[in-house]
Amino acid sequence: MNLSDEIRKQKIAKLTAYDVRFPTSLTLDGSDAVHTDPDYSIAYVVLKLSDSPVEGHGFAFTIGNGTDIVVHAIESYRYLVEGRSLGDIYGNFGKFWRDLTNDSQLRWLGPEKGVVHMACAAILNALWDAWGKLEKKPVWKLVSDFTPEQLLSVIDFRYMTDAITQDEALQILRTNESTKAQREQEILKTGIPAYVTSVGWMGYSDEKIKKRCEEGLAEGWKYYKMKVGVSVDDDYRRAKLIRSVIGYENKLMMDANQVWDVQQAIDWMHKLAEFKPLWIEEPTSPDDVLGHEAVAKAMNPLGIGVATGEHCANRVMFKQLITRGALQFCQVDGCRTGSINELLSILLLAAKHKIPVCPHAGGVGLCELVQHISIFNYICIAPTFENQMTEFANHLHEHFIAPVVMKNGRYHAPLVPGYSAELKKDSLEAHIYPHGSVWKELTANGQHKPRH
Amino acid sequence: MNLSDEIRKQKIAKLTAYDVRFPTSLTLDGSDAVHTDPDYSIAYVVLKLSDSPVEGHGFAFTIGNGTDIVVHAIESYRYLVEGRSLGDIYGNFGKFWRDLTNDSQLRWLGPEKGVVHMACAAILNALWDAWGKLEKKPVWKLVSDFTPEQLLSVIDFRYMTDAITQDEALQILRTNESTKAQREQEILKTGIPAYVTSVGWMGYSDEKIKKRCEEGLAEGWKYYKMKVGVSVDDDYRRAKLIRSVIGYENKLMMDANQVWDVQQAIDWMHKLAEFKPLWIEEPTSPDDVLGHEAVAKAMNPLGIGVATGEHCANRVMFKQLITRGALQFCQVDGCRTGSINELLSILLLAAKHKIPVCPHAGGVGLCELVQHISIFNYICIAPTFENQMTEFANHLHEHFIAPVVMKNGRYHAPLVPGYSAELKKDSLEAHIYPHGSVWKELTANGQHKPRH
Repeated sequence: MNLSDEIRKQKIAKLTAYDVRFPTSLTLDGSDAVHTDPDYSIAYVVLKLSDSPVEGHGFAFTIGNGTDIVVHAIESYRYLVEGRSLGDIYGNFGKFWRDLTNDSQLRWLGPEKGVVHMACAAILNALWDAWGKLEKKPVWKLVSDFTPEQLLSVIDFRYMTDAITQDEALQILRTNESTKAQREQEILKTGIPAYVTSVGWMGYSDEKIKKRCEEGLAEGWKYYKMKVGVSVDDDYRRAKLIRSVIGYENKLMMDANQVWDVQQAIDWMHKLAEFKPLWIEEPTSPDDVLGHEAVAKAMNPLGIGVATGEHCANRVMFKQLITRGALQFCQVDGCRTGSINELLSILLLAAKHKIPVCPHAGGVGLCELVQHISIFNYICIAPTFENQMTEFANHLHEHFIAPVVMKNGRYHAPLVPGYSAELKKDSLEAHIYPHGSVWKELTANGQHKPRH
Repeated sequence: MNLSDEIRKQKIAKLTAYDVRFPTSLTLDGSDAVHTDPDYSIAYVVLKLSDSPVEGHGFAFTIGNGTDIVVHAIESYRYLVEGRSLGDIYGNFGKFWRDLTNDSQLRWLGPEKGVVHMACAAILNALWDAWGKLEKKPVWKLVSDFTPEQLLSVIDFRYMTDAITQDEALQILRTNESTKAQREQEILKTGIPAYVTSVGWMGYSDEKIKKRCEEGLAEGWKYYKMKVGVSVDDDYRRAKLIRSVIGYENKLMMDANQVWDVQQAIDWMHKLAEFKPLWIEEPTSPDDVLGHEAVAKAMNPLGIGVATGEHCANRVMFKQLITRGALQFCQVDGCRTGSINELLSILLLAAKHKIPVCPHAGGVGLCELVQHISIFNYICIAPTFENQMTEFANHLHEHFIAPVVMKNGRYHAPLVPGYSAELKKDSLEAHIYPHGSVWKELTANGQHKPRH
């Protein structure tokens, strides 16, 4: 990896982690069949450098209680991060990735899944943010400017080689190399396609759903997602309502958030098939590769795809889902798998199998992160927008220094250096849990009751 | 569930969690290809009851750094446990299990995997311990005395019904019901078969391996396991050494601790096949169902089975491994999946597919726990010892109030009420990290350096 001496010699001077929560459960934004009361939250990392005012900011997304556990885990990795030189980290990022995610004692708590993997993702996201800032590039541009060989060097291919070899990955990158510049120009002009997810949260009233759909149409949205899985009659009624507003010229997606057993998913979706959803998302346990495969086979004659990924633990799970045809839409997440290093191996495998990548977003900060992933995926790996759109939800962007810029239902390429992950200082301080001003007030007036 | 009023009315008055570690890294007990320096540890739970001196003790096993993260997670579940009546918990244990493991906010950190699932397992293990003590029965006897219907009521079958229905499970239990008493008598007389795992840790010298094998033979052991995966030449030499001592009338198993990619596992094991191992354990990522299937297919003509499970996150992963024939030996763990409630669904599915269950043990306290699992599995679910043996390692038992009793290479049935999980008070206090006397001394004399 080409690194200037100025970058190479710097060290990580300090890692700090914060528990930051937003009280979204008060309005039931984000409610679904299994996550009934989320407070969108982030376990937030700030890295200070030894010889530069640049800071790396990154996070893992959570939904309230338990954010403190991820913060605790992040602090457990401090000993592998503080004092390490950037030359050591970025110079062989694939190796550093494995050192971090496979620490000989901490790996027992995963391995490469759940709390410890999310903690690693938060740290790695902050490292990518710092790298972008040091190179004065948004992260999508930093990655897009890598040569194919440089890009491969940040990936740990362990457990992936039976599905995609480094040579195959290199071939995909080289094929796209000569046309990267023109796609970059295109993106800078017109952005990338998005879909909106906020029309059919489980806790919304019919009027609110209708209003959200109408607003969506007025803003030019073409994709609409609704939550399903609590009551099939209720789902039927809400699907009918949404279709009555958005018509059939726009796309409708359905999201079950893991609520069904395999056969139950198949039976339920037969009853909703007349509304022609583009996909059914998370029909069953996110760990059930073969269950997803069975659902995908049953949905295929109905023209419904299976979408999953936001709870997919790591590249090994994605490998199986992709190679078995168990998903038709690959919903990578910016914080659950091990940051860009791991995501790149998944994107390359998806490209090999021509599976569209539609990153999971919404929550808080996820839109800011995943726009970078979708952009470098389009420029370097999968040069098409056929069915490749990025999730969007219109809340909590105001807390970020460089929030997403949406125009006509498309993300416009972020131009600010870094990974767009940095919170405004005031927002950060006010939302620190439980002592930030927002939480102190909610607790004092009885609107929030701490769970432990 | 039949519960006396005395049990039913009690409440969980207090949940306390402790970080307890044993400095095993000093001697390299437990070292392998990826866990190079484990300090065997437990995140330890004590439940106090409202109207009884009985305490529930339980734990999740860990390997050092990060035990504090699991303790933190256990404390996050306190609000779902304290104040809850035992009638509410044991009266519908399957429902309580789902309430705990699918808390609407904490589930985001799994779901049902890693730190949060281990935290649930520790709490549930303590609940099983309390139940046994209140009924004045060892846990294996408590479970064995359930009617088939009572036994099913503690299980959450979600995500399992495409592989095993409640009716099928009931059928298995009913088939074994009439002969339970005679198997119980047999077990009380002769115990259950074990295999020893301590002969070939990666960090041991040749002399130490040879000595351990000779001691094993003298004690009557028939099964020996060695670690492999760092250097094939080294593995070859050590396998030859072990076979030269134990001969071919005893069984040898090999354990790679997830170090290989799929094709690498197949190639490596071809080079060690001449030593006729019974199984290759954890050949690749524990998440790779299809990878294990590929290895199993390649090993079949060599007469080598695939064993896995100690890092298998939950019943959904076991479901896929078992139904695909991706494992020939099912190594359930007492602390990583969600305690007896979840293990029962896995044992029932294994029985349906005639897959032998060989629980993972060793570490600290795992032998004490899993002997119960193997015993009720034999009495109620899978009435055979063909290839069904339980792992054993001879260390750290002295810290438990009711340690395992081994005779002639067999576990003898524990008779003390509870789950055999309770540490001696002195051992607990001395090993609390980092302020117990053992750790204070090791830190003071420089033999231990805290990692954060």
